[in-house]
Amino acid sequence: MQATLSGDIVRAGDQARERFYDSSGYGHPVDAGALELAPVEAAHLLYRGDLDAVESPDGAPMDFRAFLASEAVSETDFLVYKDLRDRGFYLSPARDGWSESAAARSAVDDPAVDFVVYPRGSGPWGDEVAYRVAVVSERETVPAANLGGLVLAVVDEESELTYLETDRPEVTGTSDADLPTGVSGELFSDRVLLWDPPAAVYERGFYGQPLDDQQGDVIQLSLLEAASLTRTGVLALDGGTEAVVERGREVEGDRFDRRLAVYESLREDGLVPKTGFKFGADFRAYADVESVDDLGHSELLVRVFERPHAFSPRDLALDVRLAHGVRKTMVFALVDDERETVEWLSVSRLTP
Amino acid sequence: MQATLSGDIVRAGDQARERFYDSSGYGHPVDAGALELAPVEAAHLLYRGDLDAVESPDGAPMDFRAFLASEAVSETDFLVYKDLRDRGFYLSPARDGWSESAAARSAVDDPAVDFVVYPRGSGPWGDEVAYRVAVVSERETVPAANLGGLVLAVVDEESELTYLETDRPEVTGTSDADLPTGVSGELFSDRVLLWDPPAAVYERGFYGQPLDDQQGDVIQLSLLEAASLTRTGVLALDGGTEAVVERGREVEGDRFDRRLAVYESLREDGLVPKTGFKFGADFRAYADVESVDDLGHSELLVRVFERPHAFSPRDLALDVRLAHGVRKTMVFALVDDERETVEWLSVSRLTP
Repeated sequence: MQATLSGDIVRAGDQARERFYDSSGYGHPVDAGALELAPVEAAHLLYRGDLDAVESPDGAPMDFRAFLASEAVSETDFLVYKDLRDRGFYLSPARDGWSESAAARSAVDDPAVDFVVYPRGSGPWGDEVAYRVAVVSERETVPAANLGGLVLAVVDEESELTYLETDRPEVTGTSDADLPTGVSGELFSDRVLLWDPPAAVYERGFYGQPLDDQQGDVIQLSLLEAASLTRTGVLALDGGTEAVVERGREVEGDRFDRRLAVYESLREDGLVPKTGFKFGADFRAYADVESVDDLGHSELLVRVFERPHAFSPRDLALDVRLAHGVRKTMVFALVDDERETVEWLSVSRLTP
Repeated sequence: MQATLSGDIVRAGDQARERFYDSSGYGHPVDAGALELAPVEAAHLLYRGDLDAVESPDGAPMDFRAFLASEAVSETDFLVYKDLRDRGFYLSPARDGWSESAAARSAVDDPAVDFVVYPRGSGPWGDEVAYRVAVVSERETVPAANLGGLVLAVVDEESELTYLETDRPEVTGTSDADLPTGVSGELFSDRVLLWDPPAAVYERGFYGQPLDDQQGDVIQLSLLEAASLTRTGVLALDGGTEAVVERGREVEGDRFDRRLAVYESLREDGLVPKTGFKFGADFRAYADVESVDDLGHSELLVRVFERPHAFSPRDLALDVRLAHGVRKTMVFALVDDERETVEWLSVSRLTP
């Protein structure tokens, strides 16, 4: 069968529509029997031996090897396309005007999307989309703004693939403790000590950490906890919120303000954030704390970034792998530079 | 009992040696019955109620709260000192002239060490040292040059402690494959394809990744693998090593050279490095590969840095937690800026 590269399209001859589109979901039918293929699709047909050659515009025939080496097709796109085909999916390159269903057209409208993947057993003629896939090499950076509602297919330097599902979750919980006000505390260099606090601060609010498990009288608050509690009036402290925030900036710079915005947003939305240090994150967060004896499992690991942020796929892989290993969901809190709004992004491993 | 702060020493009165040193390993005996205490030790005695007050140089008595709030004692030092005492250890602040045994004196010679911890049941009068401990807050950075042979006690923002054991390990293995030379390959934008390689390259050397598990004919090499194989003559390629290294720098900058130095060092020392992408690391490494069907467990996760490097404790916690979760040892490869020597540092969790 004749197939000719022209610009970024491979036009295939007479039986192509029947052989490749109708039976296997390759390409975009244009008129009676003819088919337009994206180069990555043509590369896959060459690889499978379903096409013998693609002619270059000047008439030279290219086999799989020559075609892959040409500028026409990206190696990473090919590796992801092939892998999804190997997994039993039909998929289409995201191109204007190539998609039939409304779901596929809406996926194509997102410029970050490279492939529209249909549910197993379906294809471009169906109404459903299983995954919207963006292909990246491990060495590219990925703008956070592109993520959410799509699957990142990362091709690492050894040509192995990792799929990461990204979403824009609702982050809410039911934790809420009615705390007394005016509790006195003392600001130290990187913490606040409550020398004789009401038990509710720790036991109901899960603020702080007892200095001694046996005695339980002295409570150590982090500067974030202290700043949040002075702002809500629970904690009374020389210099108030401002003194705590100032100390926070001294030890942590701007990062303190970003983390405080996220800390307070989590508390307002009914979650209890605690340090994520042991997981290398900013926070772990509990959604439904009744008391310190009944924390439930901390569902979220939270890392804070300022918007706009671009991820290195390797850093993402690290966070997601760790979160998965400890059965938590990795979420990223993206804070604007005025620290007024927090956007949430979750990323998890996916096996398509 | 009278105890007076003078400079950075608290001098305690007559029965102090018997009560605090002989029975519990606090302080440094100076003459008949008298004892010099480091402020952190005095703080702990105040906390326990074994001392009622420490007099400031101007004669004002300080209780635990006042003493901890004073400049004399660091909160983080106190938290670590207390925790190790709670765990049943005697320990001494690392001070010149305070240590009796050769082991303790040698620990004190390391300026990074804050506490010399004795084995349980022993004390400053014994000959052994269990741990040499350096105290850091999670917000400090830790020079890699300080690490190795000591335990890092990290105090996080919520005053919880994480102990990390650091060592300078030998990194060696027994993997070694005799490979043919002059295998031809083709350089692509971020990989090298071997279109028809001898089976040994993948099966014995564990170089590369088959394009297709079923067919197994085409092998994809990473640029690191290709650079290493051209240098040893196994791979023949247009432009040779230089072309591969140049391509590596295009996609990865200087980092490529650092990683190549570590890759080659690992191969020379009998390990098989493969990508660590799925673990967010530079490499995972197998020490005793016989064939690709018998890899053993990949023992090491490797992250590469240029010397001098300073760690953020949070990044360390992330790597170490992940490595622990997948039963591997986290090692850092510290490369000089000429990429001639690689120093190895391992870090793992410790429960003292």
